[in-house]
Parts: sequence; C-alpha cells; structure tokens
Amino acid sequence: MTPMEMALEEARAAASRGEVPIGAVVTDAHGAVLSRAGNRVEERRDPSAHAEMLALREAAVLRGAKHLTDATLWVTLEPCAMCAQGASLFRVARVVFAAYDPKGGGVEHGARVFAHSQCNHAPEVVGGVRESEAAELLRAFFAARR
Amino acid sequence: MTPMEMALEEARAAASRGEVPIGAVVTDAHGAVLSRAGNRVEERRDPSAHAEMLALREAAVLRGAKHLTDATLWVTLEPCAMCAQGASLFRVARVVFAAYDPKGGGVEHGARVFAHSQCNHAPEVVGGVRESEAAELLRAFFAARR
Repeated sequence: MTPMEMALEEARAAASRGEVPIGAVVTDAHGAVLSRAGNRVEERRDPSAHAEMLALREAAVLRGAKHLTDATLWVTLEPCAMCAQGASLFRVARVVFAAYDPKGGGVEHGARVFAHSQCNHAPEVVGGVRESEAAELLRAFFAARR
Repeated sequence: MTPMEMALEEARAAASRGEVPIGAVVTDAHGAVLSRAGNRVEERRDPSAHAEMLALREAAVLRGAKHLTDATLWVTLEPCAMCAQGASLFRVARVVFAAYDPKGGGVEHGARVFAHSQCNHAPEVVGGVRESEAAELLRAFFAARR
C-alpha cells in the first residue's frame, strides 16, 4: 500500500466515525511509515485535531525529536493554513496532498503559507496525487449529510 | 491583573523553563479567564505546542464545546499562521496581541491568514497592547542565548 492509499484509508475510517474524511501519513526518507492519523475534530471537540497535526505530532514523539527534516507528510486534502504552518514548523521535507481545496486550503489557495519570504522552511509541495478518490470521498460525505 | 499582564506572566514563566517567552490567555465575554498557557515547544519537543494552541485547546475542553465564539485570545506576540488559523477554527471573537512579529507573524505579516476571502471566520484583531514589555522579554531572552 502506498502512503497515499494509507491516508485514504485513514480518511474513510474518519468518515465512519462521523468526521470529515481527511487522512494523513508521515513517512521517513526511506518511505517507512512513522505515523498515520485521521481527522478527530468531532470526537475530541477540538478544531485543531486535523489529521495532519495529529500525524506530525505523533511522528515527532516517535522520533523523540521535534524536527522531521527527512519526512514527507501525505494528506488527502490540501492543508489549511494551520496545518501548512505546522508542516513548516516540524520542518518536513515534502508535503504531498490529494485533492485541492479552493475554499479552505492554505498552500495553493488563500494564505499560501509557504509562498511568503517570512516562511523560514518551505517544504517541497506536490498536489493532485489520487486527487479524484479523495475528492469523491469528501463529496459523498457531505452529500449524505444534506 | 489584566489578561495581557497574565499572558506576560506566562511568557516569563516560559522563559524560566528555557522556552521562547510567549504567553497566551483566553477570556470569555465577561473577561473571565478560561485558560492560560506558555510556550512548551522544547519541553514537549513539539513545534506545535505554541502558547496560543495550548490555551485555545484548554478553553474548548473546559467549555466542552469546540467553538469559543464569545472568547478573546490574548497573546504576547503576533500569532504565526498556524495559531492564526487555529484562532479562526476555534471561532474566537477577538485576537489581542502585544508585540508585532515581522519575521514569523501570520496576522499582520506574511500569510495574513485573516485577510483572505477563504478565511470563513476572521476574528477582530487588536495589536500592540503592552507591546514594548513583550518585545523586551523576547529581546532579553535571545540576547542571553547569544
């Protein structure tokens, strides 16, 4: 299973818990999985419990180091500004995301967190990996709630 | 003691733990303190353990609700993009900060998180409250480390 497939699995598991279906995985330089997480905003009643933040924090705990300089963050949706700045603070090497998020995204849209001279660590960004599956998961989730 | 004085106290306590001196307080509509926190990045080896994130999360836990729509976040330094987006996600009414941060700030500088049409909750912002004391704390902390 590729890291993005694993992130999609976390997204589906999040949906089954009544959470917006977003999943994230952190891998090391060799592609080994350090952590995986799904959205837990509703369960924890914590709007900051985004999949990315949970996965980044868990990877750093596992490593016993606050910086993940060789790591890649895989996530099923373009990170918001909070998670994008989080990825920068954890110093990840790369952010790979699936669906673009014109409304809430903070990487390619809105705040464009990595695009400012003030951003002192801008990870490499790859968007659109398994885009349609991730977008369909979100679409189906919100359609079922309407 | 005003909320900002309390936040400055948290910042001084953070410095005494070897943390960058930044403190935050969350108050309700009546000015009652819901939570207070200092930076814990080094202690927890967690780059996301900024004072604001800790205080916001604690206030929501205390309330048993994920939104803090009547709350004010007081913080001794202009929030970074992560914390600014966090304040938006927690739906705080106001963000009051002391020192401006041209390098790392994400409210009046850089990502300017609240200034985009995508930001679906932009708190009222007041900057510069007790600015010189907060800035002096940071200056002294970094001077002592050089």
